[in-house]
Amino acid sequence: MTLAGESEVAGSTSADLTTHAQNQADTPSSPVVRFGPDEPLLLDSGTRLDHLQIAYQTYGELNAEKSNAILICHALTLDQHVGNVHPVTGKPGWWTTLVGPGKPIDTDRYFVICSNVLGGCLGTTGPASTNPATGKPYGLDLPVITVGDMVRAQARLLDHLGIETLFSVAGGSMGGMQVLQWAATYPERVFSALPIAAGARHSSQNIAFHEVGRQAVMADPEWRGGRYLTEGGSPRKGLAVARMAAHITYLSEQALHRKFGRNLQDRDKPTFGFDADFQIESYLRHQGMTFVDRFDANSYLYLTRAMDYFDLAEDYGGRLANAFRNSQTRFCVISFTSDWLFPTVENKAVVRGLNAAGASVSFVEIDTDRGHDAFLLDEPELFSTIRGFLSSAGRPRGLG
Amino acid sequence: MTLAGESEVAGSTSADLTTHAQNQADTPSSPVVRFGPDEPLLLDSGTRLDHLQIAYQTYGELNAEKSNAILICHALTLDQHVGNVHPVTGKPGWWTTLVGPGKPIDTDRYFVICSNVLGGCLGTTGPASTNPATGKPYGLDLPVITVGDMVRAQARLLDHLGIETLFSVAGGSMGGMQVLQWAATYPERVFSALPIAAGARHSSQNIAFHEVGRQAVMADPEWRGGRYLTEGGSPRKGLAVARMAAHITYLSEQALHRKFGRNLQDRDKPTFGFDADFQIESYLRHQGMTFVDRFDANSYLYLTRAMDYFDLAEDYGGRLANAFRNSQTRFCVISFTSDWLFPTVENKAVVRGLNAAGASVSFVEIDTDRGHDAFLLDEPELFSTIRGFLSSAGRPRGLG
Repeated sequence: MTLAGESEVAGSTSADLTTHAQNQADTPSSPVVRFGPDEPLLLDSGTRLDHLQIAYQTYGELNAEKSNAILICHALTLDQHVGNVHPVTGKPGWWTTLVGPGKPIDTDRYFVICSNVLGGCLGTTGPASTNPATGKPYGLDLPVITVGDMVRAQARLLDHLGIETLFSVAGGSMGGMQVLQWAATYPERVFSALPIAAGARHSSQNIAFHEVGRQAVMADPEWRGGRYLTEGGSPRKGLAVARMAAHITYLSEQALHRKFGRNLQDRDKPTFGFDADFQIESYLRHQGMTFVDRFDANSYLYLTRAMDYFDLAEDYGGRLANAFRNSQTRFCVISFTSDWLFPTVENKAVVRGLNAAGASVSFVEIDTDRGHDAFLLDEPELFSTIRGFLSSAGRPRGLG
Repeated sequence: MTLAGESEVAGSTSADLTTHAQNQADTPSSPVVRFGPDEPLLLDSGTRLDHLQIAYQTYGELNAEKSNAILICHALTLDQHVGNVHPVTGKPGWWTTLVGPGKPIDTDRYFVICSNVLGGCLGTTGPASTNPATGKPYGLDLPVITVGDMVRAQARLLDHLGIETLFSVAGGSMGGMQVLQWAATYPERVFSALPIAAGARHSSQNIAFHEVGRQAVMADPEWRGGRYLTEGGSPRKGLAVARMAAHITYLSEQALHRKFGRNLQDRDKPTFGFDADFQIESYLRHQGMTFVDRFDANSYLYLTRAMDYFDLAEDYGGRLANAFRNSQTRFCVISFTSDWLFPTVENKAVVRGLNAAGASVSFVEIDTDRGHDAFLLDEPELFSTIRGFLSSAGRPRGLG
């Protein structure tokens, strides 16, 4: 665990990192595929994108039958850098514990793809991308996007890569929302699905926390109505506050107590002031500060909004089972006992919907005190569950 | 329940309310008592206040024996206006459901006192008060205060009123912290004590949420290093964000789901934008906006800090029971099942400490889905518990 004051990339200043992060929006350190006005992406909002760029990473080799592809869908503030060093932060990929040679998602066996989501800021079209129609960053001129839009963009990428069906789609949190959306929108293209720490809709409380974050960004005068990339400035303070609030929801009360308790930071006594006396304060400030170096504030608005709008049952006449009618996909739903952002009850609602649709579904609730972020951590039961599920699902597909 | 756009006082603008609120700091609509440099208040930080003003309200009559006084300690963003119309918002007192003639805290029987806490902004010395040494508002020149300091200030008020012992001290949340502090600091002055939805310390997660709120205030350029009252401007946006984040913690996931769910606000379909599409967003924005009309931003910093520093066991050699050694006070500890800010486990830790000290204690956990704020709401079991406890405790004191 890192605490305040530690730079994410040795020798890099915050300004260097920010510039580097901004460059990633148009010219990412990842392969890209571009679609022009002849292939517009129709959006759930009723508008369309005439230019779509998708940045992605792959790991392993696609087999001759093209039957071993696994799509990983990333969470709100993550990106396509699942298994390689991050181009901005210099840190290892966010799921290297799970994805790689011999790992549960074994790149000796599977061809793994992860693309930056639509609305993101690491190379797929998002508010920080240059709008080809104006030559300036989209900012708030980008239409609001949905999880459904993200998934349709990913399907474009798969078409481009010549992959008809996915052996599996996997992801946690917002990634898990995309997994469910994939299974609903493209049932014939999804052989198996692993939604982790997710739900079929965003709850009132989750919308509330996202709204706090958005208000924090928009309250920052340097946000400038979303035009900071063209007019100068950066709503760093607002975005840091948003990140701090969100970060609390990713952990559990127990984990915070275990890691930080009421321990003081580098001091024996409280200072009777407003410095970061407590370790938890220092940790949160660090989370806020490092986040703004690698993430675009408008992108944060768009992606939180996409999550808020997510309500799969609503899109299928109010009944979740309708989203999975006649599905042949094999599902494995995973939740964590201490996750209060997507608690087990929300994951179980997904399982109930799948059961009502007659789908093949297994459900695992993993006992951990690490909260929502457990899906990103070294959780042996998570690893063995995913390994076992993929091995079992792969057998009828000849991926033994 | 009120939603966005509704003015708290008909015909009053936000600017009117803010001016009115600022005036309350020095010249409140409440009786005040002032102490000068001949009677300084020594603070836990090692500094002292040479000038102390305390604003308070009373209800009912002090009996001849002075044996029927109940001190109510208020929570973070409340004030002394327990049972009368609020001078700024025009709303009823915050505990009129519980305090009044014939109510559980029966003003026909008891003499009820509530003072604005030290560090507050409704007439007791706080950062918005004029510093007599400079003629300007204290701002951050006010020393950081603690729950212990608040209680010592209240004891000064009781001395002034000629009340030696309190029949009871009652309060919820930060008010409950003061109740516990009263029982620890002045055991001989506290006949009975009612800490509600509180704890003997602030948890890591609670400190985390407070730190988010403080950072939101301090990120607002209009905060001006705490000097907005002298230099102009007001960190309204930052304070509103702080309030929004905190407000989520006062409710429960279930209550939010029940009250708001994913309902849209005055529209049939989402707008695919960043307006308040959802009722929960509109509600939170309203909570933020109305709060800044009545509360001082620096006061919010000071009071959250006081709560963060609260750790009664730490002040008594690391063992909570030591705080209540030989206590003759009768305690009634009350928690709510859906309170995740001060969950039952924290209240039970208080009960265990009291048991270990051999104190007289009863404990009631009230089943409700309304979260932390249940102590402010119409909760019949809360009312009957308090009524019963006070009646029973009053008998040996001749208050039958």
